Amino acid sequence: MTNRRAGVGLLLSLAFVLSACASTAPSAVVGDPLPSWNDGAVKTAILAFVRRVTTEGGPDFVPVEERIATFDNDGTLWAEQPVIEGMFAVARAHAMVAAEPTLRNRQPYKAALEGDFATLMRDGAKGFLELFTATHGNLSQEDYEAAVRAFFREARYPKLGLPIAQVTYRPMVELLEYLRVNRFKTYLCSGGEIDFMRMISRDFYGIPPEQVIGTQFKKEWVERDGRWIIWRKSEIALINDQAGKPVGIDLHIGRPPVFAAGNVRSHGDVAMLTYSRGRRGPSFQLLINHDDGEREFAYQEADDGSLNAARANGWTIVSMKNDWKQVFSKPSVGHQ
Amino acid sequence: MTNRRAGVGLLLSLAFVLSACASTAPSAVVGDPLPSWNDGAVKTAILAFVRRVTTEGGPDFVPVEERIATFDNDGTLWAEQPVIEGMFAVARAHAMVAAEPTLRNRQPYKAALEGDFATLMRDGAKGFLELFTATHGNLSQEDYEAAVRAFFREARYPKLGLPIAQVTYRPMVELLEYLRVNRFKTYLCSGGEIDFMRMISRDFYGIPPEQVIGTQFKKEWVERDGRWIIWRKSEIALINDQAGKPVGIDLHIGRPPVFAAGNVRSHGDVAMLTYSRGRRGPSFQLLINHDDGEREFAYQEADDGSLNAARANGWTIVSMKNDWKQVFSKPSVGHQ
Repeated sequence: MTNRRAGVGLLLSLAFVLSACASTAPSAVVGDPLPSWNDGAVKTAILAFVRRVTTEGGPDFVPVEERIATFDNDGTLWAEQPVIEGMFAVARAHAMVAAEPTLRNRQPYKAALEGDFATLMRDGAKGFLELFTATHGNLSQEDYEAAVRAFFREARYPKLGLPIAQVTYRPMVELLEYLRVNRFKTYLCSGGEIDFMRMISRDFYGIPPEQVIGTQFKKEWVERDGRWIIWRKSEIALINDQAGKPVGIDLHIGRPPVFAAGNVRSHGDVAMLTYSRGRRGPSFQLLINHDDGEREFAYQEADDGSLNAARANGWTIVSMKNDWKQVFSKPSVGHQ
Repeated sequence: MTNRRAGVGLLLSLAFVLSACASTAPSAVVGDPLPSWNDGAVKTAILAFVRRVTTEGGPDFVPVEERIATFDNDGTLWAEQPVIEGMFAVARAHAMVAAEPTLRNRQPYKAALEGDFATLMRDGAKGFLELFTATHGNLSQEDYEAAVRAFFREARYPKLGLPIAQVTYRPMVELLEYLRVNRFKTYLCSGGEIDFMRMISRDFYGIPPEQVIGTQFKKEWVERDGRWIIWRKSEIALINDQAGKPVGIDLHIGRPPVFAAGNVRSHGDVAMLTYSRGRRGPSFQLLINHDDGEREFAYQEADDGSLNAARANGWTIVSMKNDWKQVFSKPSVGHQ
């Protein structure tokens, strides 16, 4: 039940793509460790928390080996209007049709190529799920990685006209680096497919592939043409969204994060932030509110579920509009 | 098919328990980094390999971020005659029966309590699988961790009469530390259940919980008595043995290890060592041969499959008898 809801949330992401359509290393921290954050309650809370948990002998000290931080990706570390992995799915559908033209008139390819949203959404978004598994599964891990790399080399983000590396949020990239300087181990924990994010996590965020948690496909160790390889099946093993996130974190890390960050859109991070808050000892939860229609994109949840959970549970809400001096890693970007 | 074979291999481990029945931090490396290894071809090969891949500017240099090492656990880092997790399964069956006496006459508990090997092995080891899932699943993650911790506090290893921490192999604990000093990231990668090993991985091996790869149970994020928790289902998600090991490594690390170590018994590590050997660039595979019936336990594979694979593929074979000056972390231990 929860899984189905999460699946629909993930798949809805792809919708943005159809209705729409490098590398930035964090710099060394000197002086203000969060220069792209405006002074205010949120910045102060972050700095105070990190000081508290790193003060040896203090009541809230957290030993280095327990300093785990998990960050959602879509809408928390980079833009999600449209969702970037959805762009990849459509690009790959195009490539698959080019390689095998008979696919052009078959679903879900036909709908993907034509931007036929209605067809993909029919029967509980069945077409979207098919598009996701068809474009991410049934190929070798090597070939998949090559396809993802090619996508990131070429892709430009709609509306902003920028390479993908430049639509990451600079304040969040600074925050990741600030936590690492304070000896946190930083993880991605996203509904996106794990290996898709692994291809860019180090370059974009300074996060190594082994610290990426995401939606997983079933895989097999098989012999093909005399070589043993990892084969990606056309089947999802875990959707790392909503209730899937604590499960994914437990699988990869084995305990709740001390610091967790997510964003408002589809309740995708409520479970992860709840899991973090429930840990024994101090913890910090950050929820990004997309309230900056001028520099980024303004969107909310119909029921304000994530914001309400934040208010009820003491999570810190980030207003992109008020708390961020600059939004994107590329300076001075807005709608064009 | 492969999964069933792996499952049987894992379950066979439990057999040893029924037919049979503290913490050691690695010290700082000064002078000889592998003092419990006898001088000889194997020790020389290990030292030479690590020198090669850490020599900056050399042809085989491996950047720090790619220095990944994976180690099997049972028979590679600690004794497996009997398999320690099997001891836990039986201990937990006893505890479950004590808490709920009606279980005493039900399978698989009855057979576990009576050491009734034949019943557990019937129908393709169906009873063993049931015992494994019954003792590791259908409880909260918290309660499971408490049970594992209690087991390690009390358990003593049969035949040697030692706490479990002392039946780890000192030469291998030294090797782990030596690799870490050379900036390798060390992982457990075992057929054992992931959270079982996580409870001791740091104390016994210096490996943090997030660097443990193992057999996984399906889990859920559920609300119980007003609290959100991780719940362990009675169902295995991945058996991290044989062909499951490259899949587990791919899931947790995203690429093959530069250094991998396993042992002879049930072909459990052949796939992992093959995966490591297949990486682009230098790699090292270690296969431990249990040929020391005096200080440890002598056992082989009926078909010598692992040894043959080692010879065919250039893996380094460790003779416990000849290559190890001392076997256990506890000095001067042998059969009593």
